[in-house]
Amino acid sequence: MPMHEPLDFSGWTCPAPLRDYPTVVMGHGAGGKLSAELINHLFLPAFGQPARPLADAAITEIGNSRLAISTDSFVVRPLFFPGGNIGELAVNGTINDIAMMGAQPLALTASFILEEGMPLSQLGVIAESMGRAARQAGVTLIAGDTKVVDRGHGDGVYITTTGFGLIPAGVTIGPEQARPGDAIIVSGAIGVHGVAILSVREGIEFGAPVVSDTAALHDLVRTMIASGARIHTLRDPTRGGVAAALNEIAQTAGIGVEIVERDIPIPPAVQAACELLGMDPLHIANEGKLITFVERSDAEHLLSVMRSHPLGREAALIGYATADHPGVVVARTGIGGTRVVDTLIGEQLPRIC
Amino acid sequence: MPMHEPLDFSGWTCPAPLRDYPTVVMGHGAGGKLSAELINHLFLPAFGQPARPLADAAITEIGNSRLAISTDSFVVRPLFFPGGNIGELAVNGTINDIAMMGAQPLALTASFILEEGMPLSQLGVIAESMGRAARQAGVTLIAGDTKVVDRGHGDGVYITTTGFGLIPAGVTIGPEQARPGDAIIVSGAIGVHGVAILSVREGIEFGAPVVSDTAALHDLVRTMIASGARIHTLRDPTRGGVAAALNEIAQTAGIGVEIVERDIPIPPAVQAACELLGMDPLHIANEGKLITFVERSDAEHLLSVMRSHPLGREAALIGYATADHPGVVVARTGIGGTRVVDTLIGEQLPRIC
Repeated sequence: MPMHEPLDFSGWTCPAPLRDYPTVVMGHGAGGKLSAELINHLFLPAFGQPARPLADAAITEIGNSRLAISTDSFVVRPLFFPGGNIGELAVNGTINDIAMMGAQPLALTASFILEEGMPLSQLGVIAESMGRAARQAGVTLIAGDTKVVDRGHGDGVYITTTGFGLIPAGVTIGPEQARPGDAIIVSGAIGVHGVAILSVREGIEFGAPVVSDTAALHDLVRTMIASGARIHTLRDPTRGGVAAALNEIAQTAGIGVEIVERDIPIPPAVQAACELLGMDPLHIANEGKLITFVERSDAEHLLSVMRSHPLGREAALIGYATADHPGVVVARTGIGGTRVVDTLIGEQLPRIC
Repeated sequence: MPMHEPLDFSGWTCPAPLRDYPTVVMGHGAGGKLSAELINHLFLPAFGQPARPLADAAITEIGNSRLAISTDSFVVRPLFFPGGNIGELAVNGTINDIAMMGAQPLALTASFILEEGMPLSQLGVIAESMGRAARQAGVTLIAGDTKVVDRGHGDGVYITTTGFGLIPAGVTIGPEQARPGDAIIVSGAIGVHGVAILSVREGIEFGAPVVSDTAALHDLVRTMIASGARIHTLRDPTRGGVAAALNEIAQTAGIGVEIVERDIPIPPAVQAACELLGMDPLHIANEGKLITFVERSDAEHLLSVMRSHPLGREAALIGYATADHPGVVVARTGIGGTRVVDTLIGEQLPRIC
């Protein structure tokens, strides 16, 4: 008699939208359409929940408090890149997910999957970066776990951070709050994190050195909320870049989005890298930028407030939400035409966070 | 000019207690002394926190509520084992960490690190197991993340779950609450999960088939607390087994522990496996058992309450806490002697959870 039944997965039927890829592909982790399919058609039904937009954060009520909760795994390669390492990325990334709900972060947990043979010196530097990033943000690392996998599995270290924050009374910010007429502001130059990773991975220089923009955005968010501007939506354009963030908001809110390409701050080195490699800067990941949808009449005031903050100095108004073409993002191009800005199917640049 | 400074870790000094192992070894993830060293001498100083006992859970106050928070990564091999898979293990394991603080779990987050090439059928079955375990426990999976790593890295899937629960007013349960004179009760037969994993990994049968005891213990804990028994400490003896759990409690509370070997419920198949492989059942992992330290005069009442619960039918009183030999766990052996029950340095059986 066998110790347990032979493994048999024939009882599981692959949901139709997933059938083009019966095994996991890199794009399932890239934050684009394949990621959304996996979440909506495999995970959420299994968990007994209806399909909904990509949600890596949630709100729970505890007594009279609204608690924002978010979890993220970080698998960036290489572990050390220009401007940072996986440690501060894991702290800042989860703080930012909390901040995009209008919450101020309270605490983080961190769980480590280490690869046998990883030098402790590297782990030590990564842990110190995490501690520094958490202290700078005023957030405590309250619980953790450490597992080790065999040499050759893993990639030195994977880190999963989960964050908790309080949403101030009266604040209601989310992708579903965006509405036609809203002004759309980006907090600074885009594409920097993705190109920084690319440069070190491919060993290419694109004019000036590009360093990651990894930063915790909660203080910028606090300043923005305190300005009194009627902020409807906040979003950090990480995997999938500005394009994925705008498409997600457009689809969730059922609105159209129109942006003007020449108004988007793109550093020359990012532009050069994208031209060389045939990439669209709107698809490149950012780790220290946010997009906000704000009541149109408050936009100028909010812009000036953001520009007075160190993390918003290059803030720019890049377009407006519209009642036309709901769910679709359109960009006015430099040559006077328009183009649809789509979310990528899979990955353009895997494992950037 | 290089894109970024060459990687240089010479600024990091390895803390003395870690110098025997300058790179990560499997034992760093085994929940024993090496794990404790890594946490106390690398992670906690980096995070700016004082050394403290292994803590994968923490308490945070939100308004008038006490929130118990815990995070765990799961890297069990194989993904499917007799009695369960990594999915329900990840849900039950984190629920149990919350329950051991006396809390009732509210919600979980789950983050997935998938390996390129993993069949979606396996992932689908794992996700359904997670959904089923969460529904059975009355817990919602509220947020998630999915990353993909290259083929050959990872092992199909790693899962990190983080849980939140409310600690009822008046409940104060923790390892530091144990005191001399307390009775020590285990909720059932030990060693089962570890031997189930071992059997499928090694292809060995040990008499009767052994299936994992993976289960969510929060309802047993609720019943125990409702009994009115003065429960001081709860602990699920996972990695490192009963030995590691008792040593951690003894060291945290500054008490001694005396257990009687013949009173510990050990199934014949677990006993046979341990004899064959030269292992101590007290070091084998459990995933559906708890140990409690309770006021001595309440022990008989608590035992009868536990035995009336499906997950406590084989509950047994296995010893007492003492003011003698603080920090040391001693077992009375079958032949009338005593032996010190120590925590292992590293791993006996890596990657059992």
